[in-house]
Amino acid sequence: MKKTHLLALTFVIAASALADPLPSWNDTDAKEEIIAFVDKVTTPGSPDFVPEAERVAVFDNDGTLWSEQPVYFQLLFIFDRIQQMAPEHPEWAEKEPFASVIKGDYKQALAGGHKAILSLAMAAQGNITAKEMKQATRDWIGRARHPATGRKYTEMVYQPMLELLDYLQANGFTTYIVSGGGIDFMRVFSEQVYGIPPEQVVGTSMKARYEVRDGEPVIVKEPALDFIDDKAGKPVGIYQHIGRRPIFAAGNSDGDFEMLEWTTAGDGPRFGMLVHHTDAEREWAYDRDSHVGSLNRGLSEAEQRGWLLVDMKGDWTTVYPEQTD
Amino acid sequence: MKKTHLLALTFVIAASALADPLPSWNDTDAKEEIIAFVDKVTTPGSPDFVPEAERVAVFDNDGTLWSEQPVYFQLLFIFDRIQQMAPEHPEWAEKEPFASVIKGDYKQALAGGHKAILSLAMAAQGNITAKEMKQATRDWIGRARHPATGRKYTEMVYQPMLELLDYLQANGFTTYIVSGGGIDFMRVFSEQVYGIPPEQVVGTSMKARYEVRDGEPVIVKEPALDFIDDKAGKPVGIYQHIGRRPIFAAGNSDGDFEMLEWTTAGDGPRFGMLVHHTDAEREWAYDRDSHVGSLNRGLSEAEQRGWLLVDMKGDWTTVYPEQTD
Repeated sequence: MKKTHLLALTFVIAASALADPLPSWNDTDAKEEIIAFVDKVTTPGSPDFVPEAERVAVFDNDGTLWSEQPVYFQLLFIFDRIQQMAPEHPEWAEKEPFASVIKGDYKQALAGGHKAILSLAMAAQGNITAKEMKQATRDWIGRARHPATGRKYTEMVYQPMLELLDYLQANGFTTYIVSGGGIDFMRVFSEQVYGIPPEQVVGTSMKARYEVRDGEPVIVKEPALDFIDDKAGKPVGIYQHIGRRPIFAAGNSDGDFEMLEWTTAGDGPRFGMLVHHTDAEREWAYDRDSHVGSLNRGLSEAEQRGWLLVDMKGDWTTVYPEQTD
Repeated sequence: MKKTHLLALTFVIAASALADPLPSWNDTDAKEEIIAFVDKVTTPGSPDFVPEAERVAVFDNDGTLWSEQPVYFQLLFIFDRIQQMAPEHPEWAEKEPFASVIKGDYKQALAGGHKAILSLAMAAQGNITAKEMKQATRDWIGRARHPATGRKYTEMVYQPMLELLDYLQANGFTTYIVSGGGIDFMRVFSEQVYGIPPEQVVGTSMKARYEVRDGEPVIVKEPALDFIDDKAGKPVGIYQHIGRRPIFAAGNSDGDFEMLEWTTAGDGPRFGMLVHHTDAEREWAYDRDSHVGSLNRGLSEAEQRGWLLVDMKGDWTTVYPEQTD
């Protein structure tokens, strides 16, 4: 390293230490609590110091890192896939919930509840290779736009949470996505948008098999659920994939309750946070009675459990990143 | 950084570049091929250069990183657990395969084949918490000795393979264990012996559930198989856990065939290697007809597939590390 480079590096380090690591967070208690936690676990000699290998942070995705209204975005991807696949499936025209999806009547399609969603998900994402699923996700992410905002889905992420991910990563944390969403779907954009590589994504998964097709080995996604990474499944997914208890967990709904409970019940310094959707103007306002991302038990127990409740309206200066097109 | 430190660092880097990274490997083709591969994927500007994030190396464990004779070591752990648990299970005295294990007649216990092994494994490792399993493994690893060598199991690892792991890690590879052995069992010593953290261990796993016991959240291992990480299961385990295709795979048996096939069929530079157990004097000699770690198809196809066949007897100067006690 040349001396000038070394000096430049020193300067960059000094400057970044002074800069606000969370510029899209207002100067409220929330920001202060986060920074105080990161400071204490990263300060050598502090009684709360945590070695880098143990600095595991887990993040829910839907409603925590990006929006989840009017429905989980992956469902819109699934609707889109069904419509694209329809010409090859003439039998769908007479069969619910497929017929309603093809007609664009999503409300009717969802009237069948979980069973209907599952059959759509398996049809859209089963019997294809992992590579085909990756490509389909990439295509959709590249062209699809949110019905209410007109934004790309990759720009429906929360700017303050992007900063939080960066801040934790810069402080030696390994950040994982632990999502109820599908693991293949999540992996495609996690690296690009969150700087989180595929091996740090835990999600709901379908069964898969390995086979050699015309001499080419492939992973085939089978049309059957393997693991549901939601509620009590989240700590199990963390145990199976990571094998360590995190020290930091962020969620937004009761689907994240057990993940926060598991994380914050460990010894030593722990941090649990819930994003509370309080901003009907810049995003959506919902909690206990929402059809997606319902936050009920978490809202009642956050205070007694010492979890930070982030008030989207009051704690964030902005919600989404600047729109690029 | 002080100038003297910088100079010292430069010196260390220069010295380590000159030192032999694989001192327990003879100067045969095997060593040369490994080093040539690592050189080409790590040399910036080389047409075969691979960015660090893509330098994923996967290693089987039994027979590849440590011995597997007379039986897989985890089976000896299971026998030990059954004997320890026996006083609480008087019904086992009359019930096979438990009765034979309690009597120390392992041959008879294994006469029941896979079904017998599975029932022992589920009894020994099911209905306990992940924490209890960790502790039981740690206790056993700390005190148990191999029946033939008298060594601790952590000293039944192959010194040349420890050097290979170090060498790859020093060259920006992320090294994973992808074992047919149990994931909890593997994770306990992988970090200590191989420098591989729990999140980089893929293994056979049992179903698990999350529950809160007297206010304390726990992960409970259920007495049921969830995933078998062997043969065609290995590429599936890699896909589920890592989400990337490795560029380097090491195994020793036909249980690793699909992992090597999947790894080496990808585009760009790839490396597959099989440890061939040829050393009856220093370890064991076995291949096609072995009751554990049978290497048949792999032995027949290694050459045509361009996989390195490591001759334990000829390619390694030593097998095990120096014994500490």
